[in-house]
Amino acid sequence: MTPHPFDPLTPGEISQAAHVAQLAHPDAKLFFRAISLAEPPKQDMIAFLEAEANAPRPPRLARVQLFIDRDLHELIVDLEQARITVTEPLPGKHSYIDTAFMQQAGDTCLADARVQEEIKSLNLPEGATVVVEPWAYATDGMLDEKERWTMGWFYMRLSDKPDANYYAYPLDICAEISPTLEVTKVYRLPSGTEDKVHHEKQEFDRRRIHTSSEYHPDLVSERRTTTRPYHVSQPEGPSFSTDGNLITWEKWTMRVGFNYREGMTLHDIRYDNRSLFYRLSLAEMFVPYSDPRAPYPRKAAFDLGNDGAGINANNLALGCDCLGHIKYFDGWLTTASGEPLKMPNIICCHEVDDGILWKHTNFRTGNAVVTRSRVLVLQTIITVSNYEYIFIFYFQQDGSLSYEVRATGIMSTAPIDIGDSVPYGTIIAPGTLAPYHQHIFCLRIDPAIDGHKNSLVVEESIPMPFEESAAENNPFGVGYTLKSSVIEHETGIDLDFSTNRTFKIINEGKKNRITGTPVGFKLLPHYSQLLLAHPRSFHARRSEYTSHAVWVTRHSDDELFPAGRFTMQSLGGDGISSWIEKRQKEGKERSVRNEDIVVWHTFGSTHNPRIEDWPVMPCEKLSVGLKPVNFFEANPALDVPISTQERNCSVLVGGNA
Amino acid sequence: MTPHPFDPLTPGEISQAAHVAQLAHPDAKLFFRAISLAEPPKQDMIAFLEAEANAPRPPRLARVQLFIDRDLHELIVDLEQARITVTEPLPGKHSYIDTAFMQQAGDTCLADARVQEEIKSLNLPEGATVVVEPWAYATDGMLDEKERWTMGWFYMRLSDKPDANYYAYPLDICAEISPTLEVTKVYRLPSGTEDKVHHEKQEFDRRRIHTSSEYHPDLVSERRTTTRPYHVSQPEGPSFSTDGNLITWEKWTMRVGFNYREGMTLHDIRYDNRSLFYRLSLAEMFVPYSDPRAPYPRKAAFDLGNDGAGINANNLALGCDCLGHIKYFDGWLTTASGEPLKMPNIICCHEVDDGILWKHTNFRTGNAVVTRSRVLVLQTIITVSNYEYIFIFYFQQDGSLSYEVRATGIMSTAPIDIGDSVPYGTIIAPGTLAPYHQHIFCLRIDPAIDGHKNSLVVEESIPMPFEESAAENNPFGVGYTLKSSVIEHETGIDLDFSTNRTFKIINEGKKNRITGTPVGFKLLPHYSQLLLAHPRSFHARRSEYTSHAVWVTRHSDDELFPAGRFTMQSLGGDGISSWIEKRQKEGKERSVRNEDIVVWHTFGSTHNPRIEDWPVMPCEKLSVGLKPVNFFEANPALDVPISTQERNCSVLVGGNA
Repeated sequence: MTPHPFDPLTPGEISQAAHVAQLAHPDAKLFFRAISLAEPPKQDMIAFLEAEANAPRPPRLARVQLFIDRDLHELIVDLEQARITVTEPLPGKHSYIDTAFMQQAGDTCLADARVQEEIKSLNLPEGATVVVEPWAYATDGMLDEKERWTMGWFYMRLSDKPDANYYAYPLDICAEISPTLEVTKVYRLPSGTEDKVHHEKQEFDRRRIHTSSEYHPDLVSERRTTTRPYHVSQPEGPSFSTDGNLITWEKWTMRVGFNYREGMTLHDIRYDNRSLFYRLSLAEMFVPYSDPRAPYPRKAAFDLGNDGAGINANNLALGCDCLGHIKYFDGWLTTASGEPLKMPNIICCHEVDDGILWKHTNFRTGNAVVTRSRVLVLQTIITVSNYEYIFIFYFQQDGSLSYEVRATGIMSTAPIDIGDSVPYGTIIAPGTLAPYHQHIFCLRIDPAIDGHKNSLVVEESIPMPFEESAAENNPFGVGYTLKSSVIEHETGIDLDFSTNRTFKIINEGKKNRITGTPVGFKLLPHYSQLLLAHPRSFHARRSEYTSHAVWVTRHSDDELFPAGRFTMQSLGGDGISSWIEKRQKEGKERSVRNEDIVVWHTFGSTHNPRIEDWPVMPCEKLSVGLKPVNFFEANPALDVPISTQERNCSVLVGGNA
Repeated sequence: MTPHPFDPLTPGEISQAAHVAQLAHPDAKLFFRAISLAEPPKQDMIAFLEAEANAPRPPRLARVQLFIDRDLHELIVDLEQARITVTEPLPGKHSYIDTAFMQQAGDTCLADARVQEEIKSLNLPEGATVVVEPWAYATDGMLDEKERWTMGWFYMRLSDKPDANYYAYPLDICAEISPTLEVTKVYRLPSGTEDKVHHEKQEFDRRRIHTSSEYHPDLVSERRTTTRPYHVSQPEGPSFSTDGNLITWEKWTMRVGFNYREGMTLHDIRYDNRSLFYRLSLAEMFVPYSDPRAPYPRKAAFDLGNDGAGINANNLALGCDCLGHIKYFDGWLTTASGEPLKMPNIICCHEVDDGILWKHTNFRTGNAVVTRSRVLVLQTIITVSNYEYIFIFYFQQDGSLSYEVRATGIMSTAPIDIGDSVPYGTIIAPGTLAPYHQHIFCLRIDPAIDGHKNSLVVEESIPMPFEESAAENNPFGVGYTLKSSVIEHETGIDLDFSTNRTFKIINEGKKNRITGTPVGFKLLPHYSQLLLAHPRSFHARRSEYTSHAVWVTRHSDDELFPAGRFTMQSLGGDGISSWIEKRQKEGKERSVRNEDIVVWHTFGSTHNPRIEDWPVMPCEKLSVGLKPVNFFEANPALDVPISTQERNCSVLVGGNA
């Protein structure tokens, strides 16, 4: 079967791309980092989508990131012609995290004599196993960024059960590991108030030993038995169908994509065959920690750019993660030698019931009409060391959709002396600090609202004047009207709920027959604090998208990542504000009115931990919505089935009804 | 069975209260408006709850609102002693809406000769039925507010089916109805741009006739058949149990209350037998319309104070509104003659599954542990003429809870000439305008965080200085710390997501053993615009709570309603800001630190209609949360059952897994 142009590379295509790369470099040692679909240029895809049968099929291209000998490159491989069409050397750039390397870095730490000496000096309790968690060095300007550095953070597991929670015992030593896998520095971490650092021989404080930080069923004996089973039964099966990566459900169609970096992506999203979005993706996320004491400023993770949402995607079927009728999608990654690597069940697709969709009772007749909301769920879950993120698209029968992030997993911890406190975190276990940090996401929205020429409108609800002189049209002081402005040029904008500031993506060329206004979708933003780090800090310079909540740019095929293509040890200057600024400086400022635009929404959470987030955090939900606004000619969910007892098969409890 | 002191009055108690009132006024004609529980003074209840077996049981008291002959009064009736303990005359106050009177007002309109003449002049299409929707007159200062006025808004039903949507045809006539049920004025409504009003003889424009505004299954022929059945099965029954109005579920206990005004109320909410909230209730809501053209400023509804969430509560069982195992609670109201009136199934209680509660995969062992979130739902739904509100409390296994409002139903409409537009609404059908309006709710939170002495803390996340001179402790510019202030006196405060402003209700007398900080719960506010009407307008003066997002007051038994006890045709001065200001002026400013406090959250939506909200609006959700913050000593949901396929009984679709 010929893949659809949006389909991820097949295992055969991955192998072929690696083969083509090797043939072109017969004498070189190739070390593959990623082989993934180079999505067709949008202009070609638009032509293809608009006349699927007749338009020329865009060629299948692979984007290959690899080391040719020791030099990082990206290649574009034309799979049909079996040739490399682009070779891009990437001097000074760092590839994303190499799991095998990280494991070696951990082993290196433990084997190092100075580390062993430090561990010995801790005089750990009997039965303790030291665990090293290597993290990519987040740029703080103190190391040579041309080289690749790793920080080794140390923990202790105090149980023979392998799933014991070692994050409960952060140790106060740390190591720096060189690109050639040498431990270059070992030292003690700050341990309490006023820059206090333990002298080298300070022992592990046995008052820290406790048993309340476990979560694994092997280690938690008390478990409530009151939660009775709850099953979802769908006697006629699910309401969705799939054909390869094409999902059809309740007037919606969309194509699921997957790649090592963004994980789940969605393409060519339509309702009732009207085009809504060309592409939706989580484009980046940044998790900076706020503890200012060195070396903690080196804790700041780009979980997409550095780690990869695809690479770290969970096998969902094995986790028993969903209820009802569930369809799983597999993904494919690449081994270092260019072989396809199967990632089973990385996306699940199922339905949920979301309560009432709409209801009205005619009080004159007493007749109630009620419909229930069925929702399509596309979910993927990633584990990045200690932490997990659940990413979910929800599609609703009323033509709206939402994107939800659920943050869960185990918080990263740091040691703190018993009796001390610092203003940078919460003490969640004896001697264990959960530092304050932020999670800042960027959702990339590539709209196609009834076509590809779209505009972004910022609309506010503003009181009408009520001063003596101006009150003529507002004699009772109750009036308000809307102030709308179409954004003309690429820019970043902030949220303001106090004016009901609303962001609408509209098609100025298509008017709604009834309202007389352009068809559109509005963004329901997630209100959250932006980056707290200072604009001159490396955190800020590296995560340019974190300075505004909404961005609009003209579409460019190569602008997918708002903190830049390469985030590992990045120095800044490659992100969304730099793109815009550069074009302004060069006099190439771009109109975004009635053009092919992209809207980016930055949102997140300032996570000042609660002890209730420990040892595993109950999901914190962040939600962003996209909702039709004068796009249809009525509620598109008007025709969903009426809710009846015959249909619902509910069961009455007790005797009141 | 002796009722619990929080239980609503029993039918017998209602009858008895009426009987006592009649005995005390043997010669008067009594017209009962409401007979409901006068909740015991909080001090008595605290004593009772703290030593349930030994403390004296507070007496059962009824609050009786009634007309004694023509004069409005409230009585407190001691039911055990069968005597009136308080008689409060209410000169100048108006009781809530009287449905029977409203129906008479509508009939009066239709029977009025001038109205008939106007209708005749419209020359309506054959088969048209004129429908009058009487609304309480919202104060605009143009009528004598001591008298009670009603506005008659006119619509046309253009089908012999009684459930045809007459809101699709607002007519451009309107009537004013006096307290003695006389039509005092009939006139044409504004009909288009620039204050245009039709001359008296303007006919109904037949171009307005359309068929796309129906929602009732009798009138909508096209209905999608793709939504397959979805059942919830609970083979061992629900996880909750009830004993009268006491609900026990997953370590939570709470008592359900109900009254004519607030509808569902919750009392004595505990988790693991630790006290969290004394009382939670929706305290008020206000729906002002923004069209400044007279007489539209008279459209502004206090749906609790004027209409009553209890009075307008739906019979849920008849609506087939829920899935799974459902327990319904009945409520009781009162007839005009003082008889108990049963309101069956006005609250439903059931469980839903809310996806993943927490998950972690140990990447070293590959072992995933995942739990699913079971949620307890307490739902009530009200219909207020054209519109419905769904009010839901959700309780979670992790000790958090949330309150959700879903707005649905049919929007109120106004006529507009075809071809015209006005900046005050959206044209959602030919000749039909859906005016801009706001929905502004107030959730009253009476906390009891580990006891009744609580404080409100406002906390912000603030960057540490990074100027040369101050950067000593923040050398990399990444640091931020928390700025906390305890609110000392009664006041209103606004939201600010840009500083991550967080509202915590804490108990300064109870420290968390591990974090060392006071135990608390935080408010997860709904970010929304406050009232747009001018502070000097009647809308603003009447809805004092709409000027700030968060209020804190000292608890007073008689301060339940933040726009005042009597909102019908109110003039202002009786609401929350007046309470505070009055005490300040009198030198009786109250400390709210380490006191019995109440926290009020004002939230809502500026509803500038979409055509997709027509003819019945898909639910718009607003959500407020309350979440433990350093209240417990770990994630309280750590012990929920692990999710397994054996437990979930999910079904695999297709062949990928």
